[in-house]
Amino acid sequence: MATVPLLADGEAPPESLAVFDEIREARGTDYVNNFWRALAHDPALLRATWERAAHVMAPGALHPLVKELVYIAVSTANGCTYCVHSHTAAARAKGMTPEQHTELLAVIAMASQTNALATALAVPVDDRFQEN
Amino acid sequence: MATVPLLADGEAPPESLAVFDEIREARGTDYVNNFWRALAHDPALLRATWERAAHVMAPGALHPLVKELVYIAVSTANGCTYCVHSHTAAARAKGMTPEQHTELLAVIAMASQTNALATALAVPVDDRFQEN
Amino acid sequence: MATVPLLADGEAPPESLAVFDEIREARGTDYVNNFWRALAHDPALLRATWERAAHVMAPGALHPLVKELVYIAVSTANGCTYCVHSHTAAARAKGMTPEQHTELLAVIAMASQTNALATALAVPVDDRFQEN
Amino acid sequence: MATVPLLADGEAPPESLAVFDEIREARGTDYVNNFWRALAHDPALLRATWERAAHVMAPGALHPLVKELVYIAVSTANGCTYCVHSHTAAARAKGMTPEQHTELLAVIAMASQTNALATALAVPVDDRFQEN
Amino acid sequence: MATVPLLADGEAPPESLAVFDEIREARGTDYVNNFWRALAHDPALLRATWERAAHVMAPGALHPLVKELVYIAVSTANGCTYCVHSHTAAARAKGMTPEQHTELLAVIAMASQTNALATALAVPVDDRFQEN
Amino acid sequence: MATVPLLADGEAPPESLAVFDEIREARGTDYVNNFWRALAHDPALLRATWERAAHVMAPGALHPLVKELVYIAVSTANGCTYCVHSHTAAARAKGMTPEQHTELLAVIAMASQTNALATALAVPVDDRFQEN
Repeated sequence: MATVPLLADGEAPPESLAVFDEIREARGTDYVNNFWRALAHDPALLRATWERAAHVMAPGALHPLVKELVYIAVSTANGCTYCVHSHTAAARAKGMTPEQHTELLAVIAMASQTNALATALAVPVDDRFQEN
Repeated sequence: MATVPLLADGEAPPESLAVFDEIREARGTDYVNNFWRALAHDPALLRATWERAAHVMAPGALHPLVKELVYIAVSTANGCTYCVHSHTAAARAKGMTPEQHTELLAVIAMASQTNALATALAVPVDDRFQEN
Repeated sequence: MATVPLLADGEAPPESLAVFDEIREARGTDYVNNFWRALAHDPALLRATWERAAHVMAPGALHPLVKELVYIAVSTANGCTYCVHSHTAAARAKGMTPEQHTELLAVIAMASQTNALATALAVPVDDRFQEN
Repeated sequence: MATVPLLADGEAPPESLAVFDEIREARGTDYVNNFWRALAHDPALLRATWERAAHVMAPGALHPLVKELVYIAVSTANGCTYCVHSHTAAARAKGMTPEQHTELLAVIAMASQTNALATALAVPVDDRFQEN
Repeated sequence: MATVPLLADGEAPPESLAVFDEIREARGTDYVNNFWRALAHDPALLRATWERAAHVMAPGALHPLVKELVYIAVSTANGCTYCVHSHTAAARAKGMTPEQHTELLAVIAMASQTNALATALAVPVDDRFQEN
Repeated sequence: MATVPLLADGEAPPESLAVFDEIREARGTDYVNNFWRALAHDPALLRATWERAAHVMAPGALHPLVKELVYIAVSTANGCTYCVHSHTAAARAKGMTPEQHTELLAVIAMASQTNALATALAVPVDDRFQEN
């Protein structure tokens, strides 16, 4: 149901195939998911997105699993079903337990609820929360 | 600039004051922030929100700091300035370092970007990401 | 802090002043709020917006107060602070009680919470909820 | 297409089955919809969500049908297709007429439109709309 | 999967059929897409929406293709899959090239990313950006 | 009101000052706006964001002004006041006329309205709009 055809390996331009190979190697699987196949029409956008994602999601001051949980949270709030699916799968692959998933859902629900309350009440920001 | 007056201690109903006291004790500070003062008009909604928040944000399968990071992520995607401020402050109080803050920002930005791309491309969910 | 100057009566083009007069008459007040003054740069957009709003918010199968409550709900979910303020004031002018306001807030919070849960779980729509 | 399996009665833990029974009794039907079956993996989250929803949606200062209309409005603005479906069905079950549905749609559309205009114009909130 | 039946020509009320005819004539095709068939239950809402859309999307100070690109951008940010599809098709019909589509996607992704950063940082608006 | 201090030239790390200089040169002004000063705490995130923005917004298959209009549209739908302000200013600097601004507003309002209608009606995507 995409707005562009998803490109199979035999249909993608060579520069996109090169990114597919990097994705395969980084993930240790032959499977390239639909998101990248939709982006493959434009090798430059595909490469920029993949390289930035690989950089941002790499281990650092935050654990890769924590980054996936944040990713699920943003994707949920933005209503991106595809991203919710792909990053829930990614989080599981990185060790998310059912208990962690449930707590994540509870925090997302809580935040969504208080976000709405704070907006509907138009609560002014406390001075002590401001840095500038 | 709220849509209801923020209630000072001398203005809040007794049942709301009781919740203020619980907040003070739980947080080890005399300060009660504006969100709770706006909710204080209705002691039942105030209590339900506070008790649920305290339960959800408590340590469990996820570290309390991780929960705050998820909270910031949801609040950002929902565009709730008040919540972004209060939970950034809460995350710092729970030990968030500047490096962790920056990585959080980078993940939120990345997710926002790919959420938009997946939506604009209407990428269909891969079979392997589906549980049902 | 607008992105266009708000036009005072002496600054607005005559066709916009005519709309201001209709607003004043419909509302029984001399006050024209900032939203209309920002739109007044373009009399055609001002008129189209005002006439459609007057038509849509008029009594019909739904009570005007119910329409205001729905308006607040949408404005909250869309994060429009201005609209939350103006329609909370409008709802009060149409008789919204503090108890109704609180229940409205509770419903908005509940919906926001289950919206997030349904999205994060990607719950498929039950056959019986589908009309087509 | 859920991110977790939907649990049939024979698969759900006993505490979740107990909530299913409460849902059946409250609604006077044997049917338990997918949202609750997706939540059933975690009996505590299922119970908390169900009990809060039952409390919030009960008759009070606002008519239960009005609460459903508000729920549809929030779900629409949040882009939650599942919730739009389930609460449109619930509103019909509570007596929403086609004329009311159409007026609801018109108000939601109007609010979405002026929300966007107020945001794009960054209209400052009028002093008289502010309570604090 | 609509919340109302989509009306075929033989099912729509005469006033809605009249709008269908206007749509067919304006677009030079016999095909009437699902959006209008869902709105056809209420001829007044159908007509108001169609007439406003035809007026707004007509050539003016902005080229019709530019208007379609803006439409796609808004629909993406609002997570409206239907609208993303229908307006991507409309943009192609008005001459959008694959290169333009890719650049559009890149701008939408960039904006989504910096929107999130500005919100998470709660950056105050520079004085020079304010008109009022 | 930021969640981090905005860094003046004398406070920013040298790598961030280097980016400030690139911004100044690219824009032909000494002024560096608040967004970049908030990002300056992390030179790597500042550089990545600036370089990507400069690349994406450069002339290509779409005119730079068209890109700014799209940027305003996304920022509006995402409710990012800061971005609405900064990109409205940028669009004016690139030649946006008041007439173009008004038409942009009308398209954004129209899209927001039909986005809501399509979502509330859960209109299924027409086969002919699907590429895959």
